[in-house]
Amino acid sequence: MPGEMDKPLISRRPVDSDDNLAEVPTEALKVGILGSGDFSRSLAIRLVRSGFSVVVGSRNPKRTAKLFPSAVQVTSQAEAVSSPEVIFVAMFPEHYSSLSVFSDHMVGKILVDVSNATEQENLQHRKSNAEYLASLFPTCTVVKAFNVISAWTLQAGPRDGNRQVPICSDQLEAKRTVSELVHAMGFSPLDMGALVSAREVEAMPLYLLPGWKVPTLLALGLFVCFYVYNFVRDVLQPYVQEGKNQFYKLPVSVVNTTLPCVAYVLLSLVYLPGVLAAALQLWRGTKYRRFPDWLDHWLQCRKQIGLLSFFCAVLHVLYSFCLPLRHSHRYNLVNLAIKQVMANKSRIWMEEEVWRMELYLSLGILDLGTLSLLAVTSLPSIANSLNWREFSFVQSTLGFVALVLSTLHTLTYGWTRAFEESRYKFYLPPTFTLTLLVPCVVILARVLFLLPCFSHRLAKIRRGWEETDSIQFLLPADHALAQKTSHV
Amino acid sequence: MPGEMDKPLISRRPVDSDDNLAEVPTEALKVGILGSGDFSRSLAIRLVRSGFSVVVGSRNPKRTAKLFPSAVQVTSQAEAVSSPEVIFVAMFPEHYSSLSVFSDHMVGKILVDVSNATEQENLQHRKSNAEYLASLFPTCTVVKAFNVISAWTLQAGPRDGNRQVPICSDQLEAKRTVSELVHAMGFSPLDMGALVSAREVEAMPLYLLPGWKVPTLLALGLFVCFYVYNFVRDVLQPYVQEGKNQFYKLPVSVVNTTLPCVAYVLLSLVYLPGVLAAALQLWRGTKYRRFPDWLDHWLQCRKQIGLLSFFCAVLHVLYSFCLPLRHSHRYNLVNLAIKQVMANKSRIWMEEEVWRMELYLSLGILDLGTLSLLAVTSLPSIANSLNWREFSFVQSTLGFVALVLSTLHTLTYGWTRAFEESRYKFYLPPTFTLTLLVPCVVILARVLFLLPCFSHRLAKIRRGWEETDSIQFLLPADHALAQKTSHV
Amino acid sequence: MPGEMDKPLISRRPVDSDDNLAEVPTEALKVGILGSGDFSRSLAIRLVRSGFSVVVGSRNPKRTAKLFPSAVQVTSQAEAVSSPEVIFVAMFPEHYSSLSVFSDHMVGKILVDVSNATEQENLQHRKSNAEYLASLFPTCTVVKAFNVISAWTLQAGPRDGNRQVPICSDQLEAKRTVSELVHAMGFSPLDMGALVSAREVEAMPLYLLPGWKVPTLLALGLFVCFYVYNFVRDVLQPYVQEGKNQFYKLPVSVVNTTLPCVAYVLLSLVYLPGVLAAALQLWRGTKYRRFPDWLDHWLQCRKQIGLLSFFCAVLHVLYSFCLPLRHSHRYNLVNLAIKQVMANKSRIWMEEEVWRMELYLSLGILDLGTLSLLAVTSLPSIANSLNWREFSFVQSTLGFVALVLSTLHTLTYGWTRAFEESRYKFYLPPTFTLTLLVPCVVILARVLFLLPCFSHRLAKIRRGWEETDSIQFLLPADHALAQKTSHV
Repeated sequence: MPGEMDKPLISRRPVDSDDNLAEVPTEALKVGILGSGDFSRSLAIRLVRSGFSVVVGSRNPKRTAKLFPSAVQVTSQAEAVSSPEVIFVAMFPEHYSSLSVFSDHMVGKILVDVSNATEQENLQHRKSNAEYLASLFPTCTVVKAFNVISAWTLQAGPRDGNRQVPICSDQLEAKRTVSELVHAMGFSPLDMGALVSAREVEAMPLYLLPGWKVPTLLALGLFVCFYVYNFVRDVLQPYVQEGKNQFYKLPVSVVNTTLPCVAYVLLSLVYLPGVLAAALQLWRGTKYRRFPDWLDHWLQCRKQIGLLSFFCAVLHVLYSFCLPLRHSHRYNLVNLAIKQVMANKSRIWMEEEVWRMELYLSLGILDLGTLSLLAVTSLPSIANSLNWREFSFVQSTLGFVALVLSTLHTLTYGWTRAFEESRYKFYLPPTFTLTLLVPCVVILARVLFLLPCFSHRLAKIRRGWEETDSIQFLLPADHALAQKTSHV
Repeated sequence: MPGEMDKPLISRRPVDSDDNLAEVPTEALKVGILGSGDFSRSLAIRLVRSGFSVVVGSRNPKRTAKLFPSAVQVTSQAEAVSSPEVIFVAMFPEHYSSLSVFSDHMVGKILVDVSNATEQENLQHRKSNAEYLASLFPTCTVVKAFNVISAWTLQAGPRDGNRQVPICSDQLEAKRTVSELVHAMGFSPLDMGALVSAREVEAMPLYLLPGWKVPTLLALGLFVCFYVYNFVRDVLQPYVQEGKNQFYKLPVSVVNTTLPCVAYVLLSLVYLPGVLAAALQLWRGTKYRRFPDWLDHWLQCRKQIGLLSFFCAVLHVLYSFCLPLRHSHRYNLVNLAIKQVMANKSRIWMEEEVWRMELYLSLGILDLGTLSLLAVTSLPSIANSLNWREFSFVQSTLGFVALVLSTLHTLTYGWTRAFEESRYKFYLPPTFTLTLLVPCVVILARVLFLLPCFSHRLAKIRRGWEETDSIQFLLPADHALAQKTSHV
Repeated sequence: MPGEMDKPLISRRPVDSDDNLAEVPTEALKVGILGSGDFSRSLAIRLVRSGFSVVVGSRNPKRTAKLFPSAVQVTSQAEAVSSPEVIFVAMFPEHYSSLSVFSDHMVGKILVDVSNATEQENLQHRKSNAEYLASLFPTCTVVKAFNVISAWTLQAGPRDGNRQVPICSDQLEAKRTVSELVHAMGFSPLDMGALVSAREVEAMPLYLLPGWKVPTLLALGLFVCFYVYNFVRDVLQPYVQEGKNQFYKLPVSVVNTTLPCVAYVLLSLVYLPGVLAAALQLWRGTKYRRFPDWLDHWLQCRKQIGLLSFFCAVLHVLYSFCLPLRHSHRYNLVNLAIKQVMANKSRIWMEEEVWRMELYLSLGILDLGTLSLLAVTSLPSIANSLNWREFSFVQSTLGFVALVLSTLHTLTYGWTRAFEESRYKFYLPPTFTLTLLVPCVVILARVLFLLPCFSHRLAKIRRGWEETDSIQFLLPADHALAQKTSHV
């Protein structure tokens, strides 16, 4: 039967203006749809536009017909399942069993299950909707497809990027037939294997930015820790020990000392796993052993952690620019002027303070500029236009420059404060000293790896060399272009 | 004839380096081009690169030949129309009639009209160029195609995204032949129906951001209204009633009080139509009736309105950061210090003012951060990488958070000013009170819709339920995966 | 032999879940891979997922086998080269010669060379790896392909954009076979001609943002020149002539007077080549003569120059917003207040200074807003969604508006300073007067081109008209839709 499908598929006629939905060529392949909801309607419109002849089966054809374009034949369910070879089942799974009365007419047909898991179902039932459908109709072949596509995308037509349609089925020919149908509708089929994968496919539309969960929690956790630490040092200590009320610092000032700490630590956490991976390869003397799972996940989260670091850095910049807008800033300035006048001092100027601030502001802006280049090249449309060497230059080399600039920004901000006893409030060291730990380890490690003894060995390992000499002797010609995958 | 085309199309050979444009395989399909301008040349180069054999008809072949790569055969117009089945007419429409002398050689051929409407023609002539060409050559089949593609894109090759080529013709087979040619050249054909659609297709390259027109006018209108209102309150009233010259506030200060009003009202206008649509569905008890046209258009403009709101918010932030840079700010500060000294006051501090400002600055920055996430996910390449649930989470949930943050930003900015008589200049209420109206309605409505009585009914309606009980009884199995289309 | 390939290619079965890599249909086309490194492994996985049967030849099959999925047959090199028609050579070029022992089994086969040039090789060897391979196996056909694709992309599957695979070979049929294989694996083949192009293809992955080199050097050069000039005027002159130590201005203040100069000059350099091109066309009376090479390159660099201009403008804005954060700013303010009090002045206000600053700040922000629209529409995914008219409206019209706004920003910043003798330190004119030169030329030229005498002639030329009357007479019907390519 799929053989019969080939011819009409080739002669399909894409039609994309609504005026033309009426004219259906007689030779077009007939496709059935059971169900008359939004998804069914959008599916019918897309199929007609792609040159198919569509018959919709409804329990109340008269009423339903007016919801569909005139090119779609709306009829009873019994009639809709009889003639086409491919039948879309666009109904809620709880109504699948109502179709069993037509099972005699459906022998040997291809049923396409387009349903999704709802969050509750997913946890309760262990069987996927598609497998459930297959168990109801053992004489049919069930193919899971189109569940990730929204009714809206079906109507508007696929756009670049999000056009992949995961497909799975136990029967190869049925999968191929549906694949061609997917192609004909302008989408890209993606083979997910046997019907057993349907559970995974049905869960796909429920994903909610899964790659962002751990990095976001990490950023929030860091934020809370540093905020509490800064609150104790900057607000609580002056209140307890000196009786000064500085609670007004909570919304802006404390947030603004917390954000750069989070951004800086996150940035170093982007480059730490690469350093760890290189150290592990050096120690093991081979790259052919898998990294531990936690390191693998960490390596895959680097983009998200980097973007969160950039987001925090931008917020830090915005908060900093807000500082002179505040009334508190204005009052402090005026009060300083009054104090100077009262003390009869004609001029105030502290050269060291001036230099410190000019330097760390300038470094901070250069750092932000570098980070924003990194962020821009993370956009899919730009990342795709770069070759591997360009992408790695920007992400690895520029990224390291940003880390070094951040460190210099932090050091010039800190200046000599780490060595002044008065800065250790409640015996707590200044916040910036805490944040320096991880970044400095990363920078030191990367400098170490540049030493000839390490860099040569690492380069050899990445080209496929292994420590055990016997193997090295046996496999000289086998090590392929491994340097392409190096990431540090 | 199209049957003859199939074989060569399959054996086409993409060639993309200029050095190789000379070698043309003998079996390649021959395509004719009439005209020797830029577009003709770019078309010829692209066709040769896609493996076709190209013959260009020119009135002065010798002179024209040197403008084309050597793989292109440049000959007389008479010769160019004789052998190929498909002939591109790359001439100005005013010269079409000059081709009628060759009409005997062109019987049964496919003419591809690539011309565009110029702005003037479009208004005067009521007939499209393609229909005019068809009327001149009744024995040929005219296909409209390639007019949206620029000569530059033809030469550089299609890139992802902008590769759709709308096609229309009255003859199905001719349309199919040209569709395959479009495919072979690396573009995507888009069937626009009969030749009557040519007028619409010819107007396409004249579109100038049509989706942005109404939102931009709306934003400009709001800007003018609020600017005048603020001018009257902040500049005119002090001048008229107190004799104070504050016209220096026009370029920065008044603009900066106007921009947030525009941004805030625009943001609420993004979410208002969704609320209206939900209310309409609740009231009607069904989702199967079309919304009124104005609501439909409004729903489709939401992305543009949202981006304009973001643009105004960013400008507002930039203007705010400029405030302390101004000389007027500096003078006011110094004058305040002098005044305090003269009055012999040793310290100035207003705790309430300080808190108000710290709070609304912090809320404003968080708001901007949220809005920028919304703006980034509006980029096509990022929107395409999200599934429906992720997109709706960002656009709907985060968008609502941004609206709430904007409201809090406005309320903390306003503080108690709405209740101070001195703020009612010329009896006009403070501007921020005016802007609160629409957003508060939207927020209240969305909170209302969360009440069980409304949310249950709305969820049922969105799953396909309808109020009329008889129909509900008849169609239990028919309601398809409707929740996919819910938008609020 | 390529004929034999056609059938299996059509029946290929895309499989994309790792669980299913075990099941290989018996009828799948067999492809060989020599080498067992990372690239070889990724290639094998992608081929299996695309429905091919893969045999990998290794010198130590037992040890290698566990690195590959079970669907891949890992065997000796001798066995791997015997049965498949297409053999990928995924080894380092230095080991190619070790394969010569199998040359008897490889007669007539297609060898795919996937290797890259390393930076050193590229300079030393003059022969490409693919040509070297061809010289070792004169009885085989060598095809260069897949070298631009990283092992990572092979495993993860191609994504939109970066999916082009340049191919070259001396034999058309072999090239076609590999092209179909590339298609089947989800990539787009790009014919680069004969094997002689292999050197160029092998160098591609070594490209490091070639289009950015000249614009970046230009921007850096301008920065250094203006920085030195500003240093002499703002820091050196006060030190030498007045003994004032203002070296603290180096990190922020001098950078911030330098950046806008660079941004402004770069912006004008974006529009200068268009003006020159138009002038050249007007003077020559035709558009059919090539521009000189330097002008051609310049026209192609405009996007990069524009983005660098935007980057400098953004840095300038960030530096400006930092100014009131500095201690030096704070001290200067307090000192001004003290001075006023000491001098017993009760109020300080200079209306002209206030107006000047409010105006140039407001113009600067509007300029940045316009430039950011230009930058956003340069993103590939947005540029692709615009038609030619929209793109040209934004890039040409809005760009010109940005240039005019920049000029007004500069003029209001300069105010009357160009005419004050005290501003000519060391007889050097104020920096802003130097930057005005090029932009004013561009603006004047574009205004001139709007005069009827020029605009008519230019429009005629762009439609294909030429000055020599005889030719104009001969070719009235030939000039195609040339206005599409106009760029100014």
